[in-house]
Amino acid sequence: RVNADRLWDSLMDMAKIGPGIAGGNNRQTLTDADSEGRKLFQSWCEAAGLTMGVDKIGNMFMTRPGTDPDALPIYVGSHLDTQPTGGKYDGVLGVLAGLEVIRSMNDLNIKTKHPIVVVNWTNEEGARFAPAMLASGVFAGIHSLDYAYDRKDMEGLRFGDELARICWIGDEEVGARKMHAYFEYHIEQGPILEAEEKQIGVVTHCQGLWWLEFALTGREAHTGSTPMNMRVNAGLAMARIMEMVQTVAMENQPGCVGGVGQVKFSPNSRNVLPGTVIFTVDIRSPDQTKLDGMRARIEKEAAAIAEALGVGCSVEAVGHFDPVTFDPTLVSAVRKAAEDLGYSHMNLISGAGHDACWAAKVAPATMVMCPCVGGLSHNEAEEISKEWAGAGADVLLRAVVETAGI
Amino acid sequence: RVNADRLWDSLMDMAKIGPGIAGGNNRQTLTDADSEGRKLFQSWCEAAGLTMGVDKIGNMFMTRPGTDPDALPIYVGSHLDTQPTGGKYDGVLGVLAGLEVIRSMNDLNIKTKHPIVVVNWTNEEGARFAPAMLASGVFAGIHSLDYAYDRKDMEGLRFGDELARICWIGDEEVGARKMHAYFEYHIEQGPILEAEEKQIGVVTHCQGLWWLEFALTGREAHTGSTPMNMRVNAGLAMARIMEMVQTVAMENQPGCVGGVGQVKFSPNSRNVLPGTVIFTVDIRSPDQTKLDGMRARIEKEAAAIAEALGVGCSVEAVGHFDPVTFDPTLVSAVRKAAEDLGYSHMNLISGAGHDACWAAKVAPATMVMCPCVGGLSHNEAEEISKEWAGAGADVLLRAVVETAGI
Ligand SMILES: NC(=O)NCCC(=O)O
Ligand SMILES: NC(=O)NCCC(=O)O
Repeated sequence: RVNADRLWDSLMDMAKIGPGIAGGNNRQTLTDADSEGRKLFQSWCEAAGLTMGVDKIGNMFMTRPGTDPDALPIYVGSHLDTQPTGGKYDGVLGVLAGLEVIRSMNDLNIKTKHPIVVVNWTNEEGARFAPAMLASGVFAGIHSLDYAYDRKDMEGLRFGDELARICWIGDEEVGARKMHAYFEYHIEQGPILEAEEKQIGVVTHCQGLWWLEFALTGREAHTGSTPMNMRVNAGLAMARIMEMVQTVAMENQPGCVGGVGQVKFSPNSRNVLPGTVIFTVDIRSPDQTKLDGMRARIEKEAAAIAEALGVGCSVEAVGHFDPVTFDPTLVSAVRKAAEDLGYSHMNLISGAGHDACWAAKVAPATMVMCPCVGGLSHNEAEEISKEWAGAGADVLLRAVVETAGI
Repeated sequence: RVNADRLWDSLMDMAKIGPGIAGGNNRQTLTDADSEGRKLFQSWCEAAGLTMGVDKIGNMFMTRPGTDPDALPIYVGSHLDTQPTGGKYDGVLGVLAGLEVIRSMNDLNIKTKHPIVVVNWTNEEGARFAPAMLASGVFAGIHSLDYAYDRKDMEGLRFGDELARICWIGDEEVGARKMHAYFEYHIEQGPILEAEEKQIGVVTHCQGLWWLEFALTGREAHTGSTPMNMRVNAGLAMARIMEMVQTVAMENQPGCVGGVGQVKFSPNSRNVLPGTVIFTVDIRSPDQTKLDGMRARIEKEAAAIAEALGVGCSVEAVGHFDPVTFDPTLVSAVRKAAEDLGYSHMNLISGAGHDACWAAKVAPATMVMCPCVGGLSHNEAEEISKEWAGAGADVLLRAVVETAGI
């Protein structure tokens, strides 16, 4: 078993970097706080005897050698970046539990055939630069490196420039590494484990996602002197599309979600009908047919809503992944580890996207989850207990060592 | 008659300061561009022999003396500030036509009993600092000076600090001046004069306004892993309130408008349901009963919409004025001037708010309007012709001289 106190202390130390305004964190990717968090993680890893490699997109790989020179490494990790008003555990738990696995193996003097690499993927959240899981996506060959470098944040800053600015561009080619297996431990970010009173989620699948960025073009005009029948009201079109997305999601229950997190009105002045409205619809389902069906219906109905108001409507998919089925052998290894350790467990479909989704394209991959209070995540109030954190890390340790071979 | 070419040249020269991105202007109040525009106006006024006074809220008063030492001045003006993506004429025409009235009187060697003061009111637009017509409101005793100083823009900058920063705090007490009459010339910002093919709008009334700023409190949560039935979706509540505002406005036709120009999601991340949504509803009507009835209904129905979704809802009136009836004697003077000059004219109710609405609280006041292309305003594409501009300035000159007495 791992040292849950040590894991917890590391979580609390990391949370001091990029503090939020309500007890959580704002350590968005490629900010100064991100760089500082990376340095702290690096120092801990080096103290645990790991050797660092960094690739051209800033992914950090911390290696513990194996005993078999021909064996491919097992990768364990997640991400240290957070949402602008994020929690202390989303992603961070997976990275620091990976480190805790190494620390525990050092304590117990366990040597494995396969090397073990703890990984911190760049820009998992996709909050500052869409899409989410950007760097693991480049690693898996889904996106090109240039595509990633050209992503822009809301201020118009380029991903590539910001990565250079915080000095975390490494020299490794992205995706050059081969993996024997990939494990990611994460908080559930949903309500199921807590409701079912289970300690461990054995993650069998991850639901797929579309991020549809709508750009609506109305006619900028005075809110007071423009008669109702002369308005080309892009804001009203947005409101109707948001309601329609809700309807589509509700009609596809159970097993899907849909909502809007980001909205931008221009010029965003109280007495000006917006000339442009940009907003992103986020839809997800573990069922590929439902997912793509929702997308088609939303795009069609949005076009009709806009047209009826004379509003221009274009849509771009700024994020996408298909539903993922994780590797059955690794899933079984996680389930067996939970059973051997006497932890209650159940199968889960991940509601959120994870770097494991892209890693699964290039290696056998799976995930372990622990509950989080009220299923709340992407909120500074995100909370877990030390015991929950430790149980999942125990499972991770056991499944990793099992797979890595002694 | 005025010199329409000179008026037009001044309009074009002023438009060079704070250029927009699409042919219009971004000369928002209390920016460096505002300060530069004020200095240009000051230099023109001084060249025309006017003496400047500035009050503690930055209102500029440029005086041409009268022949009767006991006669109160006649004030003529509007505002030089613009929307973030504003036109070249909204407000500016009224200030520079005031100057053109003076220049023409100088040319014609006309002396009047009453002094004439050309005025540039600070922050008419209310785009950067709500409410609109802020400084004329303080002048008329509607708001306190401290209230105005404490207004904040979206970056959190204080009105008072920004006024000091651009060095336009004068030493006059705000509202200390007494007016014999107030005239404001403005583009219509609506479609009626153009559609009716009239050169001059004789403005008899101005519709009243409420700006209702809603703050909706949802629960920040993950867009992917939060099931539909666990969402406290403030964005959806906003969409429903926007649709309801549209319904209320349509059900109150004719004679009222309602819409939303400003929206702020927090944290505004694609994969986070918003914790807070702030947006402003703008409703107007010349009919006090309709106006207040719409407000009451919107607040009531918004509360019900939010409650049904479990969303917290508070509302603050961040802007308000009652419908205004302009002074019948001055209105007649405008109508007579148009008739004497042979310009086609009609009575108008102003759809937009103007400094004249507050001036009307402390003096006889009225307005003159000219058409604008397609009724379009609060848009960089706002357009008028030199002939339209000149006709209204002719009417202004004649009505002002008539009222000022030779
Ligand atoms: N785990 C997590 O929150 N990832 C962000 C990408 C997503 O929106 O699912
Ligand atoms: N004239 C004008 O656009 N004033 C701004 C205040 C308003 O919204 O009516």
